[in-house]
Amino acid sequence: MGKVICVGLGPGDPELMSVKADRMIRSAQHVAYFRKAGRSGQARKIVNGIISKDAIEYPMEYPVTTEIHFSDPEYNRLLSEFYDDWANRMTELSQTQEVIVLCEGDPFFYGSFMHLHSRLQGRATVDVVPGITGMSGCWTATGMPITWGDDVLTVLMATLPEEELSRRAADTDALAVMKIGRNLPKLKRALETAGRLEDAWLIERGTMEGQRVQRLSEATGDWPYFTIAVVHGQGRRP
Amino acid sequence: MGKVICVGLGPGDPELMSVKADRMIRSAQHVAYFRKAGRSGQARKIVNGIISKDAIEYPMEYPVTTEIHFSDPEYNRLLSEFYDDWANRMTELSQTQEVIVLCEGDPFFYGSFMHLHSRLQGRATVDVVPGITGMSGCWTATGMPITWGDDVLTVLMATLPEEELSRRAADTDALAVMKIGRNLPKLKRALETAGRLEDAWLIERGTMEGQRVQRLSEATGDWPYFTIAVVHGQGRRP
Repeated sequence: MGKVICVGLGPGDPELMSVKADRMIRSAQHVAYFRKAGRSGQARKIVNGIISKDAIEYPMEYPVTTEIHFSDPEYNRLLSEFYDDWANRMTELSQTQEVIVLCEGDPFFYGSFMHLHSRLQGRATVDVVPGITGMSGCWTATGMPITWGDDVLTVLMATLPEEELSRRAADTDALAVMKIGRNLPKLKRALETAGRLEDAWLIERGTMEGQRVQRLSEATGDWPYFTIAVVHGQGRRP
Repeated sequence: MGKVICVGLGPGDPELMSVKADRMIRSAQHVAYFRKAGRSGQARKIVNGIISKDAIEYPMEYPVTTEIHFSDPEYNRLLSEFYDDWANRMTELSQTQEVIVLCEGDPFFYGSFMHLHSRLQGRATVDVVPGITGMSGCWTATGMPITWGDDVLTVLMATLPEEELSRRAADTDALAVMKIGRNLPKLKRALETAGRLEDAWLIERGTMEGQRVQRLSEATGDWPYFTIAVVHGQGRRP
């Protein structure tokens, strides 16, 4: 009797995955990971040089990423079918094998694996190994603490409406914003309305080669979807 | 020329520290860690069996923890003196040595090291290695994802006033609450007012021996300060 183990890879630097993740990936015979079709995939890149040459790999290629808006029913139908299909394959495989599913960051924190996790309930034994979140890698990259004392931290997706972004940015001590990419101009306006723009930082590829840290107010040009913005809390400090 | 490196230990299971943390601690000659006076200290416990027998240890014992309320000026004075003193010692030591400071969880996320970090600016070279947060270990322990799709996550300290706790708990999708301990009855009332009590879970010693996961509404008796409560988001899922 096998199982499915989803392993958090952390923010990107392979040395920032846990000792447990490293050990499990090195000995894995079946390794699955999500990726955009036609790309090698960030998760797979992180385990380069760790994964065994004999491992059987299962790249799970999203049928759609940002080509269709997530409010379109077709987006939902395509992704649902995709997760159903892989949940079926993993259920079967896990009858006899241990399957390691790679997941960037921390699996239960906005991770894609959750959509398999919910479909595998009652059908397979599933374990999850937590990881360092991408936002944690990013605030560490700024060299400044994110939260002190009784600070409130709010985590927002830049996909939310501008008004909601600004209302919540104005009503928190510390802030982390994910899923930025083409939402950057909207986020910038929202932070300006909230009076937080001057304190915001933008981090691309936190902890990885090519890491970029910049004041959000000075950021121009294209920043990828996985860019993260932070505003540091200023709470109690003796 | 040495430096001070603060290393995040993660949520408690020694296998959940990063490969980098594990490597640095094994080779460390000078290891400092915070603890309550008269206790062995959780950080030191996590590295048992990893730390070298030849390492010189620097237990930094808090002059006060919860005996005096943090709003008392005396609390502030005692802690400030304590951090000043250790910052001076580390500045001196780091002229010639590499000092590893252990920190539970993720150092820049409500960590005590930040109070040394700010005092060491311009006086010593300081590096920080991120870790898996305690809250991440705790929501993983519940076996349920904490956030989906566009969910908003709010992180609160149970030390905040009851009204603020309930207002914020009512205005978020997912919730993590730290620093619980004797604030549990207050938190319970706040979550009830917010209509979130039935969905809240309480986790003690997440990822460690003696881990306890219970519905918050059913929790009675004493729960330690480092207990964490979570309410899972219910966001978009294809």
